[in-house]
Amino acid sequence: MVTLHSAFKQLGQSYVFRQVNERTSRYAESHPDASIIKMGVGNTTRPLSPTVVAALHNAVDDLSRPETYTGYGDELGERYLREDLAKYYNQTYGLSLSADEFVLSDGAKSDTANLPSIFEHGLNVAVQDPVYPVYVESNILAGNTLVYMECNEANGFVPAAPDTDVDLIYICSPNNPTGTVATREQLSELVQYARSHNAIIIFDAAYSSFIRDTTLPRSIYEIDGAEQCAIEVNSFSKWIGFSGVRLAWSIVPNSLEIEHSEVSDVLNTWRRRQLVYFNGPSNIAQKGARAALTPEGLQENKDIVDGYLANAQLLASTFSSLGFTCYGGQNSPYVWVKCPDGKDSWQFFDELLENVQIVTTPGVGFGTMGEGFIRVSGFSSKENTEEAVRRFTDYFSNESR
Amino acid sequence: MVTLHSAFKQLGQSYVFRQVNERTSRYAESHPDASIIKMGVGNTTRPLSPTVVAALHNAVDDLSRPETYTGYGDELGERYLREDLAKYYNQTYGLSLSADEFVLSDGAKSDTANLPSIFEHGLNVAVQDPVYPVYVESNILAGNTLVYMECNEANGFVPAAPDTDVDLIYICSPNNPTGTVATREQLSELVQYARSHNAIIIFDAAYSSFIRDTTLPRSIYEIDGAEQCAIEVNSFSKWIGFSGVRLAWSIVPNSLEIEHSEVSDVLNTWRRRQLVYFNGPSNIAQKGARAALTPEGLQENKDIVDGYLANAQLLASTFSSLGFTCYGGQNSPYVWVKCPDGKDSWQFFDELLENVQIVTTPGVGFGTMGEGFIRVSGFSSKENTEEAVRRFTDYFSNESR
Repeated sequence: MVTLHSAFKQLGQSYVFRQVNERTSRYAESHPDASIIKMGVGNTTRPLSPTVVAALHNAVDDLSRPETYTGYGDELGERYLREDLAKYYNQTYGLSLSADEFVLSDGAKSDTANLPSIFEHGLNVAVQDPVYPVYVESNILAGNTLVYMECNEANGFVPAAPDTDVDLIYICSPNNPTGTVATREQLSELVQYARSHNAIIIFDAAYSSFIRDTTLPRSIYEIDGAEQCAIEVNSFSKWIGFSGVRLAWSIVPNSLEIEHSEVSDVLNTWRRRQLVYFNGPSNIAQKGARAALTPEGLQENKDIVDGYLANAQLLASTFSSLGFTCYGGQNSPYVWVKCPDGKDSWQFFDELLENVQIVTTPGVGFGTMGEGFIRVSGFSSKENTEEAVRRFTDYFSNESR
Repeated sequence: MVTLHSAFKQLGQSYVFRQVNERTSRYAESHPDASIIKMGVGNTTRPLSPTVVAALHNAVDDLSRPETYTGYGDELGERYLREDLAKYYNQTYGLSLSADEFVLSDGAKSDTANLPSIFEHGLNVAVQDPVYPVYVESNILAGNTLVYMECNEANGFVPAAPDTDVDLIYICSPNNPTGTVATREQLSELVQYARSHNAIIIFDAAYSSFIRDTTLPRSIYEIDGAEQCAIEVNSFSKWIGFSGVRLAWSIVPNSLEIEHSEVSDVLNTWRRRQLVYFNGPSNIAQKGARAALTPEGLQENKDIVDGYLANAQLLASTFSSLGFTCYGGQNSPYVWVKCPDGKDSWQFFDELLENVQIVTTPGVGFGTMGEGFIRVSGFSSKENTEEAVRRFTDYFSNESR
């Protein structure tokens, strides 16, 4: 008899961002005049760059004419874009990746959630705590066991290598939610752990375009040995504002092999998985991304990201000057603020929503170690960020604390 | 120690369409002057309708302005489009579905492949033979056991209900690859089977827009009792030419419940699954599809599909008049042609590629029962279809058979 997968019972009622949206909607309904500023979900707000917009219009025009119309493309992503991405990586980081090592998809969320399906179930999977919930939920559903790597003020929210044997390690840097960035030394330690334990790192670099400090690694492959043990996932969402357009990529190096396994070729297993479950990303999106990788596109999108970075820095300096302890806000769009007076995450979330009409994300939504913090996002307009700073300053300066 | 999922060893070397493409590329490389007509992969070739093109341009413009830019949308698909689809179904088929019963995705391939993941593994899953390979491969990877329902000339390529206990039943009508369409009586028999065996039907209606015979069901929910036992999957790929743009939907009725199960609510389990693994379809695509559901959009896209139908009918009548046995080609874009003189599928595929430079799909690529047939697609331009008909007629009229 058909039964539903019981692992769904182990998931929370819903994804934290959905809870934030629901609580915000309820507040908005009961306070129709409130001017709410959303700094919860890390959602881009700035318009696409002119070069990308022009390319998207051209892509639509291509679909309007019989001689340029295209239907299904390559299920792994169009070769031209995989080649452009390989060239970008190789030039930027001094690597020698090939287009075949890139697989395009509709999102880094999908990729990080789908990657466990290419491995046998029953793995020990290390994740940071606090953690992007998708890593946890997809591995619960895959039948894996989670090992939490505590991130706290003592270790600056970057974990040491696990002290037990694990098979997969998810690392997100710049980190969602804490906004902290792993150094070269910290990533080297994790790569050494993976190589000596036959573990695989899934490196989520979705925020790498926010790194301006050139001493910080933007790709895991800047670390020696990573091509033997790491898969990198990245996305056009935050880099070029494609969070709603949907386009991402993963990199599985040819040199990543699993010994003592019936199937040893990770790249071709991942490619084969995608051929069954996916039919390629949108042809419109891919032509837009190609334009973003030109010199004009890169510069325009750097300027857009710079705007988000300025917001994050302003928020971080405001919270600091108001006496809060906070992390992130440099080389990252996120600021991780410690709740005052022993308040818990949802209490402080509600306090900010009700008193200054600003939506944040409660840290506990990202894991036990996130309790007592909130995440504030720099993904707003400059105007909204400045207005938020005014409200925070007014409220906390006048407060009795 | 991490190992790759051994079930990948049970999959064939590659998806049939990839093999067809590879063999075609090799032929093209060694015959650079050959004028090859591709009738293999069921890939749309006609430009998008003017109403849809205009809406896509507007969607891109929306992304170019701060006041209309949007990032992440609803992970289950924008409410306006789910409401429009529900309205379309309710008006067309006299149903009372709600927007909440619709879940939007990037493709019907993804949905039919992902649906098994919401059930416990170890299911008996009935599929037609010949069959769209994705149903087979995704269920092998999910750890399920396949039960093949033979489709042959005797049963007109529509199977009777299984004669054993199965848990899931995939039905594709109009059928890919045979081009045959299940009647109301045939679907009623399958629905009765499902209800009496606590089985669930996954009804793939990706070609429903090709049905012109009003006595044939286009949605499984035209059949009494289907809302208690069937999930429907459909797509904008073939309906409005979005095969490269990527947009699809599934319907899980509220009234579809599983008794005696820890988790009983199929709709909310599917929605929860999507919240973990998916971040919503493209905002550009969704605005295009909304325009396709207006009266102008519907009429324009009916005209485009009519063109493909005329191709399929011309191909079917040509093969018939040349003495071939063939199926489909009515209410379907596909013609299913019996190979002459006891040839097997790949032999006949090669004969056509080498002698008339026309790419078809070998029936055996869809399963054992497809051996001895090829699939010919009506998804070409009128000109290419007429040229193909001339080549077929010249070649087979002059042949000694």
